[in-house]
Amino acid sequence: MTYCVAMRLADGLVFASDSRTNAGFDQISTFRKMHVFEQAGERELVLLSAGNLATSQSVISLLERRAGTDVTNVLNTGSMFETAELVGQTMREVIRRDNPDGKLGQVDFSCSLILGGQIKGEVPRLFNIYPEGNFIEATEETPYFQIGESKYGKPIIDRVVNYRTPLDRAYQCALISFDSTMKSNLSVGMPLDIAIYRTNELKPCLMDRVDDQSAYFHELRQRWHQGIQDLFANLTPPNLG
Amino acid sequence: MTYCVAMRLADGLVFASDSRTNAGFDQISTFRKMHVFEQAGERELVLLSAGNLATSQSVISLLERRAGTDVTNVLNTGSMFETAELVGQTMREVIRRDNPDGKLGQVDFSCSLILGGQIKGEVPRLFNIYPEGNFIEATEETPYFQIGESKYGKPIIDRVVNYRTPLDRAYQCALISFDSTMKSNLSVGMPLDIAIYRTNELKPCLMDRVDDQSAYFHELRQRWHQGIQDLFANLTPPNLG
Repeated sequence: MTYCVAMRLADGLVFASDSRTNAGFDQISTFRKMHVFEQAGERELVLLSAGNLATSQSVISLLERRAGTDVTNVLNTGSMFETAELVGQTMREVIRRDNPDGKLGQVDFSCSLILGGQIKGEVPRLFNIYPEGNFIEATEETPYFQIGESKYGKPIIDRVVNYRTPLDRAYQCALISFDSTMKSNLSVGMPLDIAIYRTNELKPCLMDRVDDQSAYFHELRQRWHQGIQDLFANLTPPNLG
Repeated sequence: MTYCVAMRLADGLVFASDSRTNAGFDQISTFRKMHVFEQAGERELVLLSAGNLATSQSVISLLERRAGTDVTNVLNTGSMFETAELVGQTMREVIRRDNPDGKLGQVDFSCSLILGGQIKGEVPRLFNIYPEGNFIEATEETPYFQIGESKYGKPIIDRVVNYRTPLDRAYQCALISFDSTMKSNLSVGMPLDIAIYRTNELKPCLMDRVDDQSAYFHELRQRWHQGIQDLFANLTPPNLG
């Protein structure tokens, strides 16, 4: 399983992904689910992936191999929208390669992607690319996307994040969202990959890998857990009559 | 969709269920998912159901029709364990009736049930009955079960409920769990049915229906939402460098 979340806010973009993959409980590995394509000062693109690892790795490999060539690629698209189209097409290409007639019903070849970033001249943009290769874009009303095991960590985002949330607070909320998810689903696990971009800087504001040694995350988890327990304890209990 | 949760705690049993059913977004109805079988002072049984409504209604109807007859039924079983066996058998009977060869692959006839209660002479017990009719029992380490749309509302239960939690606090936590779930999934909806039993009383301590008019739930939802936002605002944000 996987959990990835990305937010497009007034101040910029926040990306976070876990790194656990599993094929059964005794076949657990660590794979990076965040991939960055960049030309400093020109474009910063981040792809987060969930689903079939063979498919998502092939998509990334093809995007990397074609970057800088003459064909349309992630470094020469004219907009984030065109980049989303390109990534969606590449995903369909890989799935057609591996399951040409759509008949290999036993295996799920699909993957879901989040693409976000900024190309000079455009505002930062964020897309959720479905397994079919089509996609939707984040708006001010719906400024974030999740892929993978999204449910455990959704309520906290809905309660505290909106388009005007500062980047440091949005990042903090993403960490709490991961905490709730990792407590509930063993197949989502550390380390977490983090990328944060301020609008129009066209370079990373933060690139980090949060692991078991992270003092900040460790303290945040403890404080949040204790804070929830205190908040609950201070509510007026219902009268059972 | 459905969300039901039940807890078996040192002080007794807490049950809560939503009442929304839907077959598509334009076919929404209210159905009670909590069913009670009782003989005051002798036995109190509560069934919560999720999944195919035709199946769960038939199971309930058969259990009701047979109650008080000479065959093994919910009012004459010798233990909660036997009752769980009976309910599981009845579910298999209904699914065999409606899908005798298991070949009607398009429709999911299955349902999941939670059975809890107390029979005089036994301690209160709680069972999660799977679609196949087999079941597991709650323990001190795992004192609660959820069926239906369980993920959004799970983290809060894990953070504040354990076997020693008082009944009023456990009920309060269930309401918060429903709040998070209903915020995230439109197919889980009010009114909520609530049943609470104190150990060895063999009569309900609280039977309630919580709807939009419930002042307590309304205030709890507001206070919780504000409390989470305040808790979040008071944490130290990460340093983005």
